[in-house]
Amino acid sequence: MARRIDLNCDMGESFGAFTVGDDAAMLDLVTTANIACGFHAGDPVVMRRTIRMAKEKGVSVGAHPSFADLYGFGRRRISGERPEDLETQLIYQILSMQAMAALEGHPMTHVKTHGALGNMAAVDADLAALCVRAIRAVDRSLVFVTLPYSETYKAAEKAGLRVACEIYADRSYTDQGELTPRSQPGAVIHDPGQSLDQVLEMVVNGHIPTTGGHRLPVSPETLCIHGDTVGAVDIARRLRRALEENGVEIAAFAKP
Amino acid sequence: MARRIDLNCDMGESFGAFTVGDDAAMLDLVTTANIACGFHAGDPVVMRRTIRMAKEKGVSVGAHPSFADLYGFGRRRISGERPEDLETQLIYQILSMQAMAALEGHPMTHVKTHGALGNMAAVDADLAALCVRAIRAVDRSLVFVTLPYSETYKAAEKAGLRVACEIYADRSYTDQGELTPRSQPGAVIHDPGQSLDQVLEMVVNGHIPTTGGHRLPVSPETLCIHGDTVGAVDIARRLRRALEENGVEIAAFAKP
Amino acid sequence: MARRIDLNCDMGESFGAFTVGDDAAMLDLVTTANIACGFHAGDPVVMRRTIRMAKEKGVSVGAHPSFADLYGFGRRRISGERPEDLETQLIYQILSMQAMAALEGHPMTHVKTHGALGNMAAVDADLAALCVRAIRAVDRSLVFVTLPYSETYKAAEKAGLRVACEIYADRSYTDQGELTPRSQPGAVIHDPGQSLDQVLEMVVNGHIPTTGGHRLPVSPETLCIHGDTVGAVDIARRLRRALEENGVEIAAFAKP
Amino acid sequence: MARRIDLNCDMGESFGAFTVGDDAAMLDLVTTANIACGFHAGDPVVMRRTIRMAKEKGVSVGAHPSFADLYGFGRRRISGERPEDLETQLIYQILSMQAMAALEGHPMTHVKTHGALGNMAAVDADLAALCVRAIRAVDRSLVFVTLPYSETYKAAEKAGLRVACEIYADRSYTDQGELTPRSQPGAVIHDPGQSLDQVLEMVVNGHIPTTGGHRLPVSPETLCIHGDTVGAVDIARRLRRALEENGVEIAAFAKP
Repeated sequence: MARRIDLNCDMGESFGAFTVGDDAAMLDLVTTANIACGFHAGDPVVMRRTIRMAKEKGVSVGAHPSFADLYGFGRRRISGERPEDLETQLIYQILSMQAMAALEGHPMTHVKTHGALGNMAAVDADLAALCVRAIRAVDRSLVFVTLPYSETYKAAEKAGLRVACEIYADRSYTDQGELTPRSQPGAVIHDPGQSLDQVLEMVVNGHIPTTGGHRLPVSPETLCIHGDTVGAVDIARRLRRALEENGVEIAAFAKP
Repeated sequence: MARRIDLNCDMGESFGAFTVGDDAAMLDLVTTANIACGFHAGDPVVMRRTIRMAKEKGVSVGAHPSFADLYGFGRRRISGERPEDLETQLIYQILSMQAMAALEGHPMTHVKTHGALGNMAAVDADLAALCVRAIRAVDRSLVFVTLPYSETYKAAEKAGLRVACEIYADRSYTDQGELTPRSQPGAVIHDPGQSLDQVLEMVVNGHIPTTGGHRLPVSPETLCIHGDTVGAVDIARRLRRALEENGVEIAAFAKP
Repeated sequence: MARRIDLNCDMGESFGAFTVGDDAAMLDLVTTANIACGFHAGDPVVMRRTIRMAKEKGVSVGAHPSFADLYGFGRRRISGERPEDLETQLIYQILSMQAMAALEGHPMTHVKTHGALGNMAAVDADLAALCVRAIRAVDRSLVFVTLPYSETYKAAEKAGLRVACEIYADRSYTDQGELTPRSQPGAVIHDPGQSLDQVLEMVVNGHIPTTGGHRLPVSPETLCIHGDTVGAVDIARRLRRALEENGVEIAAFAKP
Repeated sequence: MARRIDLNCDMGESFGAFTVGDDAAMLDLVTTANIACGFHAGDPVVMRRTIRMAKEKGVSVGAHPSFADLYGFGRRRISGERPEDLETQLIYQILSMQAMAALEGHPMTHVKTHGALGNMAAVDADLAALCVRAIRAVDRSLVFVTLPYSETYKAAEKAGLRVACEIYADRSYTDQGELTPRSQPGAVIHDPGQSLDQVLEMVVNGHIPTTGGHRLPVSPETLCIHGDTVGAVDIARRLRRALEENGVEIAAFAKP
């Protein structure tokens, strides 16, 4: 097992005068940035500025597409659209981010779906396949950041799309290898020590510890770092340092 | 001269998941809240929550209408619309806020225009008259918060609309009694002591000190407190305390 | 059985320069207008213009609230919002329309939910109760236009809200009294003669003819007239004339 | 003088369920389509569909960027933005359309600015230079469709950007070679015969006839065809036929 992990964070989620997160600080800590594409957050100015900062700091960038839902920040579950329309919306987001990153001389490496779209696709085979088709329509060499044991993971593998398996430090896992739903007790891990142990178990030993006491095999490539919560930067800094102190190398899963 | 002043602050400028300012903290310091109406910021949930907090803390509320411009946060200068359409947009914003405030049992007292709309109306007699018509169309008893020596002030007076004359602590004034444009040197007063002196001169002595060394008569009723800058709450707290220590009573210019 | 029916039509669904339907023509044919509130369509200028035209032509007006979804025209199914937030969004829409109608001297009579919100609430007791709470929070005398045998109907009755039972000319009904889902064959009635017969059966005899050959009791008060399809005005004109020729009086279910 | 002209039309200006114009019919008549980029109208689904239809019918496509102003359909005059932000917005629009057209195998040929942005840039050297920089930042081989005797024309020439000189059939010209402002009498030519004569004079003889009775030299490459007015398709059809009958060849100014 490689004692190495990427740290990815959602970014570029400001919109016009509305500021979200401290992207500049976070870019000093992570190795991969998932940049909002203007559908749940972000706008051209924010996209470009975020890509430029990421390039300067050597952070890999990718598209973070969403349902078309600025008001709901992409967190509302949306259905009833024609699948081909949703697919085109995703293609547009991925395509535009890729074009902007290319213009800035910092080619995009990957795609990670946002919010409700990501949650729904993780357990819906049709929606997962739709996401995979959208990525492949743009560029088959893009990496799809997705959860282990998810429909998106399966759909990507089936289509021959490269996957970067994503793990969480602060979420517990069910016996099926899925994130425990937030509605259930124990879904969120608040203790930093426990978070670190879970990450080390996954990164170093290649096992997901489940709430039922089992261990599921996993080959994690990237760890999700939250950027928009209170104290996010401090939490990220401590986690990164703890990982390094435990001999884990922090490096992007893909470089431009 | 009454040694009394209202402190007003723009609020409710969050939108969905996008958070702006610390309204709860600011509501402990000011006596009047100008609440965004969803056109440059704000949404029904934010409007209602802000009205409820203001009611709880005994802060008067009013509408803070804007150009229809969420992306630009109402700061872009917009023209070329049919005047009757803009008037209807303002009526809608004032009307909706009034209805929501009434529903919450905390009747609205006033209107203060936002951003570019306010800046443009202050020097454009036609636009100023349009704003006054919109307010009067909704409710002739509403107070119009406006700058002294402005077209909006004149238009309100001419139409018999009650005006609350608004002053700034951190902006200098031209010999015409207008705010020095931000593009010019000396427009912004950075020194807290100088800010306080200017406010006391206006509130206690009834004079605007101008950049040309003159004094213009003024009867200030409300002082603009900024809510969305870094350290806004601390600046507001210090200014309020300094005013009180200098014998100035802090009270709303209108109560529901 | 009263041989009388109201004709209602969704209107005011233009947005800025985007024009939907021929509201002026339709207002000559219907007796009740459900006006979009700016969340799926409509804007203040369109709202006001539509209310004014309706007043001039003696057509009753009501609010036609929706999910916050301009891009999806309120047709996308949205979930995952906090119920109290959705409730506040509905309250705002109903409140604003009521205030605008009052300003124009043409008091609003009713509420009819739009698109996906309406479809979802018809079969979801919690969502139905939420809609009823929102209407009652604004004004308990408003009439709720809703389908027979729906959760919204039941929730309104339970809360003591006045209901206007709505029927369709061009949709068939299941044995449970619900509209046959559009995904199923026979959901839409294309033959004008068959449409007329169905309406007469419901209006004159008080029976819903179901696809299973049954008859369910119904007391229809309003018939839904589509406004945004090709030839909508002609279809509406022919249907109205046919009803009148069959002795059915066309009159609003509520007058301001 | 080449007796040849391109016919260009703004398209893809629908948004979600809001339909504007009859693009399918218009694509049978014109040789170049300027496709909305989602800022004043258009969305990814509309963009892609319009590009596909244009490709099928052999019509050249380009980007039709605008101020960020869906509500105002890009017709409101907007200022006060940071120039570099506006430039990035234009780059994004051009870039995204180019990427989508490339994906569909129908490479984009040109850019034509929309509405208020186009009108303002035509008489504002700074704004004209900004538009030219945005186009060049994306692709220096793109053609800029612009009015003769305008600041945009001059800025493009100065920067070495290829220009396609655009003329109008239904607008008169001042002695300076500019379109007579719509606010002035005689700005719009309503008579089809007079429109045709003006076009022939420009295309065949290379002269702009001005309202002052002068003739200004012009080398027109494309004629603007309106798509969103009543009877637009019929007007376009008659004009095209009349031009062909007068020996004018209709052909795109640039092919993919």
